[in-house]
Amino acid sequence: MTLRAESHEERRRVARTAAGLTSGSLLLTCLEDVRWCCDFTGSNGWLLLGEEESCLLTDGRYVEQAAIQVPPTVRVVACPTARSMSTAVATAAPDGPIAVQEAHLSVETWRALSHETGERLVAAAPELGHVRRSKSSLEIDHIRRAAAIADEALAASMASIRRGTSERELRDELEAHMRSLGADGPSYETIVAGGPVHSALPHHRPTDRRFENGDTVVIDVGALVEGYHSDMTRTFFIGEPSSEVTRWYGVLDEAQRLAASMVAPGRAVAEIDRACRATLAAAELESWFIHGLGHGVGLLIHENPFINRVSEAVLRPGDVVTIEPGLYRGGFAGMRIEDLLLVTDDSHEILTRSPKDPTCPR
Amino acid sequence: MTLRAESHEERRRVARTAAGLTSGSLLLTCLEDVRWCCDFTGSNGWLLLGEEESCLLTDGRYVEQAAIQVPPTVRVVACPTARSMSTAVATAAPDGPIAVQEAHLSVETWRALSHETGERLVAAAPELGHVRRSKSSLEIDHIRRAAAIADEALAASMASIRRGTSERELRDELEAHMRSLGADGPSYETIVAGGPVHSALPHHRPTDRRFENGDTVVIDVGALVEGYHSDMTRTFFIGEPSSEVTRWYGVLDEAQRLAASMVAPGRAVAEIDRACRATLAAAELESWFIHGLGHGVGLLIHENPFINRVSEAVLRPGDVVTIEPGLYRGGFAGMRIEDLLLVTDDSHEILTRSPKDPTCPR
Repeated sequence: MTLRAESHEERRRVARTAAGLTSGSLLLTCLEDVRWCCDFTGSNGWLLLGEEESCLLTDGRYVEQAAIQVPPTVRVVACPTARSMSTAVATAAPDGPIAVQEAHLSVETWRALSHETGERLVAAAPELGHVRRSKSSLEIDHIRRAAAIADEALAASMASIRRGTSERELRDELEAHMRSLGADGPSYETIVAGGPVHSALPHHRPTDRRFENGDTVVIDVGALVEGYHSDMTRTFFIGEPSSEVTRWYGVLDEAQRLAASMVAPGRAVAEIDRACRATLAAAELESWFIHGLGHGVGLLIHENPFINRVSEAVLRPGDVVTIEPGLYRGGFAGMRIEDLLLVTDDSHEILTRSPKDPTCPR
Repeated sequence: MTLRAESHEERRRVARTAAGLTSGSLLLTCLEDVRWCCDFTGSNGWLLLGEEESCLLTDGRYVEQAAIQVPPTVRVVACPTARSMSTAVATAAPDGPIAVQEAHLSVETWRALSHETGERLVAAAPELGHVRRSKSSLEIDHIRRAAAIADEALAASMASIRRGTSERELRDELEAHMRSLGADGPSYETIVAGGPVHSALPHHRPTDRRFENGDTVVIDVGALVEGYHSDMTRTFFIGEPSSEVTRWYGVLDEAQRLAASMVAPGRAVAEIDRACRATLAAAELESWFIHGLGHGVGLLIHENPFINRVSEAVLRPGDVVTIEPGLYRGGFAGMRIEDLLLVTDDSHEILTRSPKDPTCPR
């Protein structure tokens, strides 16, 4: 594997370069980018990367925490109010352009910052939005562990995937297993969606509905480890499925395996999306696949590269992405199969290992 | 109590008025405002409130869910990509000004929208940021239930607040109790912070550290019910506290009670903050109180009105706010006491009922 930015100091250099800076300062307002560059985990923090100095701006709740978390080369500046953060940027970057993350800055804050800094704001180059894609070995370790925890939690919950269990009960069991296996929490709101109505809603929230014979049950579960996420979906049949449900599942499984097999460095993501949809189209099922094929995963559960028909992204070594086609027909059934894959130097590795047999234990 | 906007239709009217619109459209991009106006709970949705028609714009993952959730008077428009959401706004609002929420719109999205709509964007009036403050009776019911669940979870966990329990173990127990009592989940990352280092970090994340004699333990816990949050903090002593810790706690308790007693309609929040700090200052402890005094709570855990020394907000009936002074001295101890209060027509009601005796069961 290619060596990637492991140290925070190196990451701060990489970020400045990706932003297109030769002089002036870079202001990071995306919290995950801030964390990536200096290890700060609070809910309010801006990182200003100057030509010589780096400053973390945060409020009183996090000043002591920041002093513990960030490297000594990063100066922590306490800002009691939102407005004072803009003022602190102007003070710490008295001249030169200030590159900002326009996708991670509200218009309101941009106006305040622009006013305080004498209109020196410029947009950072788009490549900055891709710097966290090339995961370091430590980052991959965290994601690998998160994926393994979700695998183990699902295996430990298999006996509950049967008629009579409620969506909430299964959700609670999965999350309790993940916690006891050392996860900091679920990676996102765990989805357990059973039956012809709920399973056809891609982001259904678990209810008290109990599984019945003939249901498909969609389980979308991931763990959080040191800020890093995992993401996996499996679909199960309660009792005997109809032949049409079985046919759908077979096609979906084939499309998912094909798409996953195409994951490799240099591959245009739109090409993978197209191939997956073509497999579904050949079985006249494409119209039931109503969302993108996948997304990057890291400090955020949804991040670059997004995998869909309009994306121009090309996969790189170190990318961690989902491949997750689904079919959703309200009143009939919903199903999704999702794996998490690491793009290696010449191919890929599948990080989620749970079996894909949709049959439940009797 | 005054009657408040209970129906979604009335809320959509209230939002347009608060935004300062007489003609043209209002585009809501704050997800909680969208939910408040039409019951949509997905993670991606814009609500366009025109003079005659209302449209919810969302992507394929949520089209079927939206059709189930939103009232029939709101038209659901499927937008496969982020860019197509901007295009859909231009189509659905072909002329007139379009008021936007500049605090809830990134500069990047603002530029795309501005381009698509022929530069017809204007900033919505600031009052729009306050429309969700006056809670309806149903909203208050949800928050009341969330607060009661957290109270009950804390009571059920009291036996574990003793030497030898780890922060994570207590966090897991609290969250499991809240789930079994019917919460949809924790209201935010539950904080359990024990000992002289962790308790002095206001937003500490639980670790495997076990409580020891002499520790203060800060527990900040809330439940989520139908999208509504509760928020409460209690501090406990493990074993015998030092006389200085006891003195600090007595002063903090007095300051918190005084501030809470001042919560009433018509009261300027800055005045409450000042009074609280004056009590701490009289005991020479003010410098250890390093964050704002409180915040509004509703569909968001932190929302208007924010209670601090620079806020110009004045309390209104229907506001639900926290009062949460804390003292944090790294290496010595940290402590915080927080209640959730409903502003009534003439005074307030305290929604969090857990006792404030910091002594633990032996």
